[in-house]
Amino acid sequence: MKKNISQATIDRLPLYFRTLRLVEDEDISIISSDELGRRLDITPEQIRKDLATFGQFGRKGIGYYVHDLKDNISNILGLQNRWRLAIVGVGHLGGALANYVNFASLGFSVVALFDRNSRVVGTAVNGIRVNSISHMKRVITAQAVDIGIITVPAEEAQSVADSLVAAGVKGIWNFAPIKLTVPPTVPLVNEDLSVGLSALSYHMSQE
Amino acid sequence: MKKNISQATIDRLPLYFRTLRLVEDEDISIISSDELGRRLDITPEQIRKDLATFGQFGRKGIGYYVHDLKDNISNILGLQNRWRLAIVGVGHLGGALANYVNFASLGFSVVALFDRNSRVVGTAVNGIRVNSISHMKRVITAQAVDIGIITVPAEEAQSVADSLVAAGVKGIWNFAPIKLTVPPTVPLVNEDLSVGLSALSYHMSQE
Repeated sequence: MKKNISQATIDRLPLYFRTLRLVEDEDISIISSDELGRRLDITPEQIRKDLATFGQFGRKGIGYYVHDLKDNISNILGLQNRWRLAIVGVGHLGGALANYVNFASLGFSVVALFDRNSRVVGTAVNGIRVNSISHMKRVITAQAVDIGIITVPAEEAQSVADSLVAAGVKGIWNFAPIKLTVPPTVPLVNEDLSVGLSALSYHMSQE
Repeated sequence: MKKNISQATIDRLPLYFRTLRLVEDEDISIISSDELGRRLDITPEQIRKDLATFGQFGRKGIGYYVHDLKDNISNILGLQNRWRLAIVGVGHLGGALANYVNFASLGFSVVALFDRNSRVVGTAVNGIRVNSISHMKRVITAQAVDIGIITVPAEEAQSVADSLVAAGVKGIWNFAPIKLTVPPTVPLVNEDLSVGLSALSYHMSQE
């Protein structure tokens, strides 16, 4: 795999994939970089450059074959791995993620749930039993979990991250509003819903 | 308010605000740009530059007064407006957002819910009655809604956006995986949970 691909290019890959899935649903089989650019609000030049970085070239004057390009980007993104997810913290957000239909269409599946609240442990969410957080290593090993999703309060998040890493997860998706420390071999993506909403507030104040 | 502030700087403001709230909770009253940089993984130089753009200057050799800086950034972000939110599409994600405790701490409140499913209309989520989407304009006006949150499937999102704009919302937060068209006077922020997860998949494939 190529080294030194810009983070910005990597960050756009999921957007291309998402759009190509929608385009394919519209029964469109060939799409130009111009049309992709319109749909994504990214210049056609940038799109062609990004895709070329990953060896994806359109046919000049015609465009890209949608199905092939979608599959190729899916492979570049590693989605064929069909990653297995565990959610730690089954509150409203954790529960919503356990039911998030879009994961399945990307090949991800939620296979384990953890909480520290004894009233929640033993209940089922979307058919999956909630385990006690004290059984994390055993369950994560038994379920071959790849990704740990952290949806606990900020003050508990680092401890949960440490437990997930010790249990052997290969990646962490963090929804707690705090910077976590993980080994460099464990990719970490942070998601903070309040950031987008605060940005919206800023722009609305300017109007 | 200053013009021509870079989007990157604006995008970092909510991160500063979020971190300063956590710092204040730790009963820290003064913080250096070095320490802020460690917590945020942003260089101290960039932090000082960003904050200076908004007229926020630390005391040389000492740092920033946490409470004042936090309040000032809160005002720059427009959070004092105590925006009122409506959620359209009360599925798992919409329902989770209706219960999302972090909104209240930012001054946002969910005041209206809409769905097109007659089995959902009339039920209550977090004490708020779900209205029929056909009553949107009336309810949005009556509840003085500022922000519309879109948590419906991609194919319905543009229609919902059009209705929200016609009903008078001042901003839209979109969770549907599709590019929306709105008037330039209506700020729009897109949130797509699958993007972060796909990026994680990419990085995990590289390990």
